[in-house]
Amino acid sequence: MIEDTLLVQLAKDYGTPLYVYDGDEVVARYNSFLKAFKSRYKKTKVMYAVKANSSLALLRLLAKQGCGADVVSGGELFIARKAGIKSEDIIFTSSSKTVQELELALEEDVIVTHGNVSELLTFSSIAEERGKTARICFRVNPDVSSKTHPKIATGLKNSKFGLHLEGDIALKAYEKALELNGVKPIGVHAHIGSQIHESQAFEEAVSKLMDFAVMLKKELGVELDFIDLGGGLGISHQGEKTLTPKEFAEAILPNFLNGLEDLSNEPYLYLEPGRYIVGPAGVLLTKVNSVKKTPYKNFVNVDAGFNTLARPTLYDAYHHMTVLGKSGNEELVDVAGNVCESGDILGRDRSLPKTSVGDIISIKDCGAYGFAMASEYNSQPLPCEVLVRGGIGELIRTRRSYSDLIAEQKIPEALK
Amino acid sequence: MIEDTLLVQLAKDYGTPLYVYDGDEVVARYNSFLKAFKSRYKKTKVMYAVKANSSLALLRLLAKQGCGADVVSGGELFIARKAGIKSEDIIFTSSSKTVQELELALEEDVIVTHGNVSELLTFSSIAEERGKTARICFRVNPDVSSKTHPKIATGLKNSKFGLHLEGDIALKAYEKALELNGVKPIGVHAHIGSQIHESQAFEEAVSKLMDFAVMLKKELGVELDFIDLGGGLGISHQGEKTLTPKEFAEAILPNFLNGLEDLSNEPYLYLEPGRYIVGPAGVLLTKVNSVKKTPYKNFVNVDAGFNTLARPTLYDAYHHMTVLGKSGNEELVDVAGNVCESGDILGRDRSLPKTSVGDIISIKDCGAYGFAMASEYNSQPLPCEVLVRGGIGELIRTRRSYSDLIAEQKIPEALK
Repeated sequence: MIEDTLLVQLAKDYGTPLYVYDGDEVVARYNSFLKAFKSRYKKTKVMYAVKANSSLALLRLLAKQGCGADVVSGGELFIARKAGIKSEDIIFTSSSKTVQELELALEEDVIVTHGNVSELLTFSSIAEERGKTARICFRVNPDVSSKTHPKIATGLKNSKFGLHLEGDIALKAYEKALELNGVKPIGVHAHIGSQIHESQAFEEAVSKLMDFAVMLKKELGVELDFIDLGGGLGISHQGEKTLTPKEFAEAILPNFLNGLEDLSNEPYLYLEPGRYIVGPAGVLLTKVNSVKKTPYKNFVNVDAGFNTLARPTLYDAYHHMTVLGKSGNEELVDVAGNVCESGDILGRDRSLPKTSVGDIISIKDCGAYGFAMASEYNSQPLPCEVLVRGGIGELIRTRRSYSDLIAEQKIPEALK
Repeated sequence: MIEDTLLVQLAKDYGTPLYVYDGDEVVARYNSFLKAFKSRYKKTKVMYAVKANSSLALLRLLAKQGCGADVVSGGELFIARKAGIKSEDIIFTSSSKTVQELELALEEDVIVTHGNVSELLTFSSIAEERGKTARICFRVNPDVSSKTHPKIATGLKNSKFGLHLEGDIALKAYEKALELNGVKPIGVHAHIGSQIHESQAFEEAVSKLMDFAVMLKKELGVELDFIDLGGGLGISHQGEKTLTPKEFAEAILPNFLNGLEDLSNEPYLYLEPGRYIVGPAGVLLTKVNSVKKTPYKNFVNVDAGFNTLARPTLYDAYHHMTVLGKSGNEELVDVAGNVCESGDILGRDRSLPKTSVGDIISIKDCGAYGFAMASEYNSQPLPCEVLVRGGIGELIRTRRSYSDLIAEQKIPEALK
């Protein structure tokens, strides 16, 4: 972890709010994840879920380790390529792609995951028109048993993602793809959720997916180049028990390896961790603007809000906090964001050392879905980002200015 | 309202997702709001709540009508000034301001609303250091009765906003302000919430605020230049009954006018409508990327998501939708956003004419808290905006590009 003294210095040098990432930790987490699977199944590829944190420098760091990318938009595809991730290591998975995004995918020659036949038809005709054959796969909906995981199962059944296995819906999509020009199905994809802390749902999903892979071979003669199990491995925010990559691998690989026995080839295993790799490696630094006691609550008003870090407001997510350079003498406070909405509380009922104006609060585990979800709501310019490697911090994104807020805007002549 | 044929043309000309605002409707709504109050109390000033929609061109349009601005950040203050709103017509209200924001407020000579004494002390010392005297006010927390409005009252009591009237907390803040150099309290401010559809809470709040104004005069000899009743007038999304500006004015003005009788002067009445003025004047146009039938739901996958329009995901907000150029032949669908999260559904269980790939869906009442809350989550570049006046649309914000996504980013030398 990055020393508090360095964090204080970075806040001074670059101002707040400021996202700081520990590059060494990102690499270590990537390697530990990869090793857990690769040591058990050689043909493993990690496709980092770019949506968790699409910082160009972080992607470059991961590209240097040989990491692939799971991208969910043309923008992410663009950034992943700019960061030096090879086309063959990129998979484009999203439930809704525009024609322009499909064209870019074709141009960059990445694998495309479809979640419906309608999009397949569009892609096939684009590819055919250009005389290309694109590598594709479908995302299937494994509909994990509602008995053990009611929330997930409900989510899955009604989810916008993936094709259902039931009624041979997914199978028929592959059949359709085989009939069409311009597309070649070479893999299968599933993703059962996010921030999951136990493996049972995963195990079940893997088992169903392997059964489906076997069916694809038997019914349609499809030999899969890869099987993509998606992401979803959780991280700990509040001391909750989580799976290590080793435990995760040991839980889901038996079903995977078991399924392989009925396949005639050895497909690649793709995994798409995002949060696991970058989440705990980032902090958000925010400065105390003012403090306030009311008869009901004490507030510490900071210079970040749910425009900077959406998770507490959007998902009621807990992010641990410390006051840099302070300990003991704690009091119960709400850490209130600077957005003009009563829901903008970054931390409720927290025991923090008594804070003063100018103190820096470090909000933990903000490496994933932190900056990625940030907006300029309330016209607060986007914050900057620093990457720390070997104890040295470097600015990897400059802070936006007030002028940037109007850079794309114009006033019609008649109103001037 | 803007004709559907024009909307189709604009989607073709500028692409989707696209925000379109009806400038004539914005002006009409502003005028109807202003008139409802000004015809009953001459010294009324409308301070448009910029956070609802901070488009430079819309602000310029409102500035030309003589409208003032309620800003909640340095960024909004910057944009309001750029749009030509006069300093004297701007009030800076937020619960948490940085030193830089307070300095800008001083430089631009706008009224500053404080919600706590800690910030007052910071501001006073900045102003004193520069030999200036800033006009300030406090936001008070009227703690509207929990009997009639439990949700609002609870919210208010524990709210991060405002100083409580009880225990003379707000009174003591004014007393403190009178002692300090650099600041002069000249008004009082309250804001009881947002998207409110009945006046009782407002009436009660006004009554308490007027009692407080009288107390300020009697106890501290403060003569108020203005009384700011904030915003909060709701709009209808799903046919729900709302107050007209006239009904709103008729409901809250009696308590206001009644309170004036015990004051020795005639203060300005400030009002801060945001959503009311721009909300119904905007639509979001989004294109159908693909359609999908599952055994459980039908999905229409579009090219906008909760990064484009956050309200459905963030607040479970309902926004009415139509398919441009289509009617009848309806089916029940979920309109699914393109963000890679299962929660990204823009409209659930909607009866819409059977849609095809390429159709344009018009999402209504998106003028407020639409673009303002948009982000580039999933690396989707921010959409563009068009202002329609007299039946002619003009681009007022260009669409961001993939290159813009990395414009502020850099890769450290050692990683190149």
